[in-house]
Amino acid sequence: MNIALIIENSQAAKNEIIHNALTNVVEPLGHTVHHYGMYSPEDEAHLTYPMIGILAGILINSKAADFVVTGCGTGMGSGLACNAMPGVFCGLVIDPTDAFLFGQINDGNAISMPYAKGFGWAAELNLEDCYRKLFEVERGVGYPKERAAVMAKNRGILSELKAASCHDMLTVLKTIDQDLLKTAISGERFGEYFFANSQDEGISEYLRGVLAA
Amino acid sequence: MNIALIIENSQAAKNEIIHNALTNVVEPLGHTVHHYGMYSPEDEAHLTYPMIGILAGILINSKAADFVVTGCGTGMGSGLACNAMPGVFCGLVIDPTDAFLFGQINDGNAISMPYAKGFGWAAELNLEDCYRKLFEVERGVGYPKERAAVMAKNRGILSELKAASCHDMLTVLKTIDQDLLKTAISGERFGEYFFANSQDEGISEYLRGVLAA
Amino acid sequence: MNIALIIENSQAAKNEIIHNALTNVVEPLGHTVHHYGMYSPEDEAHLTYPMIGILAGILINSKAADFVVTGCGTGMGSGLACNAMPGVFCGLVIDPTDAFLFGQINDGNAISMPYAKGFGWAAELNLEDCYRKLFEVERGVGYPKERAAVMAKNRGILSELKAASCHDMLTVLKTIDQDLLKTAISGERFGEYFFANSQDEGISEYLRGVLAA
Amino acid sequence: MNIALIIENSQAAKNEIIHNALTNVVEPLGHTVHHYGMYSPEDEAHLTYPMIGILAGILINSKAADFVVTGCGTGMGSGLACNAMPGVFCGLVIDPTDAFLFGQINDGNAISMPYAKGFGWAAELNLEDCYRKLFEVERGVGYPKERAAVMAKNRGILSELKAASCHDMLTVLKTIDQDLLKTAISGERFGEYFFANSQDEGISEYLRGVLAA
Repeated sequence: MNIALIIENSQAAKNEIIHNALTNVVEPLGHTVHHYGMYSPEDEAHLTYPMIGILAGILINSKAADFVVTGCGTGMGSGLACNAMPGVFCGLVIDPTDAFLFGQINDGNAISMPYAKGFGWAAELNLEDCYRKLFEVERGVGYPKERAAVMAKNRGILSELKAASCHDMLTVLKTIDQDLLKTAISGERFGEYFFANSQDEGISEYLRGVLAA
Repeated sequence: MNIALIIENSQAAKNEIIHNALTNVVEPLGHTVHHYGMYSPEDEAHLTYPMIGILAGILINSKAADFVVTGCGTGMGSGLACNAMPGVFCGLVIDPTDAFLFGQINDGNAISMPYAKGFGWAAELNLEDCYRKLFEVERGVGYPKERAAVMAKNRGILSELKAASCHDMLTVLKTIDQDLLKTAISGERFGEYFFANSQDEGISEYLRGVLAA
Repeated sequence: MNIALIIENSQAAKNEIIHNALTNVVEPLGHTVHHYGMYSPEDEAHLTYPMIGILAGILINSKAADFVVTGCGTGMGSGLACNAMPGVFCGLVIDPTDAFLFGQINDGNAISMPYAKGFGWAAELNLEDCYRKLFEVERGVGYPKERAAVMAKNRGILSELKAASCHDMLTVLKTIDQDLLKTAISGERFGEYFFANSQDEGISEYLRGVLAA
Repeated sequence: MNIALIIENSQAAKNEIIHNALTNVVEPLGHTVHHYGMYSPEDEAHLTYPMIGILAGILINSKAADFVVTGCGTGMGSGLACNAMPGVFCGLVIDPTDAFLFGQINDGNAISMPYAKGFGWAAELNLEDCYRKLFEVERGVGYPKERAAVMAKNRGILSELKAASCHDMLTVLKTIDQDLLKTAISGERFGEYFFANSQDEGISEYLRGVLAA
């Protein structure tokens, strides 16, 4: 699985803790982490939480990533921004049980975590536990398993509902503030990771144009 | 303020605890609670979490409610469904600090809470504390206050982003599964509360038609 | 390791959830669970939280158990009672990180957990995670490991401090309310588990007398 | 009420946040805060968590303080040390509901909080909420109130149990490591606060001797 990591500007100083916790857990499971930034508070490309939503929307809809791991101070802003995009289902995960239940019941494609609120000493332990509960098991199996069918049915209904309420991602990209979009994709390694993995030529082509503009 | 309470089917048995906690807190503050159900597990109208999203979308976009308080087992499903709708910004609130920060920083118009996960003995105390942190203070003031301007700016950007990604609510209502919509608005008191308070004639008229069909 | 499980009367109905979670985790690790009750709300021997303290004191000081897992509604009462006894160092554990850090830093011989407050749907997941963090690793190694020496030193000082402040357990047993003591050890399987495992003949003999009185 | 604040060495840098949160809440309620240190990581008197236990034991048993507010990285070490002392009943408080329930059910005379684990951005909000739940209401009233009598009875039993298991505080002071004791009471303002408020001449006299030695 291709897992994209995106860190909001206010928490950029915690880049190393978060990145290490994620790779410690998921690389031994055979997953790949593409870290889309921020890498430090000094990065040129400042990713605010609305930009995280745009980026998550691009990555999920183009299939450049299978899953997005993100967060901000409380996890709320980046979560709202992700969920504002078509096809992105982003859970707010605070503890390992949240992570597990989100994976089993909601089976979304993104999580947002608080990297400031409640994030004290030894918080890396909780990060790793949350990632583990999400990535070391098969997701979408339901909890308890007897309710798997109902849970799958509701996920399907939600998915159709969101498809009805949102424009497709390419339309969204064309409609939103183009400066905002350009900044959102201006991270140091966006080009390297995205264009090599995108499976949507329409989105790729459009973003090439934006970057060239 | 008109506060709409919506309780998902799996948690309908907790109706009284949740409704009491909410009214205990907000009525003395001068707010009104419109309880859109479910009222008990025996209700005829079974509200699943995708329906909660539809209902929240209707109430917020028509201005029949100023704020939606909802939840499901983990709070995640109803939160995702609310956030799938245009104009709805729904925070997942677990503890009082979450409630306060969501109110001050994100200043959304809905919250979703877990009414099963972590909901044990004395959980009514936490419910009341969360409602208090949200409703007894002016929201959107920022925390810390020095960052109010940045926070307001990001809220504005998120709001525009979501406006660009979503169809308007009337279009959504016309596009989604009409049976699902009809069930979502078939609660015992939907008619009473909604039509008296809706400020969007287009939505009202359309829903009258759905109910009559 | 011999792990004693003790459940307070108000939470006796959760016996099966707690017992299963504990044995699911620790038996595959090669540990033995001795369940000292309560087994159901209908048990004749009603264990209040002060009695849990007495029982924990007996089991730890006689070495009939190496570790005590207990709890009450909030975990606080049973924790205070355990910590009132000589030689018992009981941590209040709410989440997996608490469990891990208590094991690594404080390396006590008992934990108390809330089995009502915060104990909602899927709470068995958190129980198992907590037990895992405590029992699947070597305890007392320090976290972070660089601080192991300081942590061990403070544990030693605390241990001496408590030894200075408390009477020895046999004296405590002789001094406390003998009816309370008798009820504390009147659980259905106390005799079977305790006398076979106690390594303190003085305590064993005294308790035989109490039970015979 | 005289509330003593004691901060462990590892968290001394958070002195201002904790002290402000406590005084913000309790001074308007008419309580007095005596801050026994540490005041900064640079203090000469380094209070380790075992010393916090000694200090809490001195303050509670001499009635120089009515209540002790303390904590360490996880709250566990300082809590264990407090509970190792005669007459001290110290709750581990993490969230506002913990604080409220401890006050109502256990009605102890000390709390220990985690000032590192889970202590992230905006943690001052949670501190204030916890203090409020503890100090703005009458304690020991029971929750729910119908269970007040049972709760009071168990508190009485626990209190007698602890009295039976511990030596009296003056004996403890004479028995423990005298260097440790001297450091524990060597804080800058110990003399000023303690000797003016102690109601136990035996303890006061003994500590005068220790300081003079």
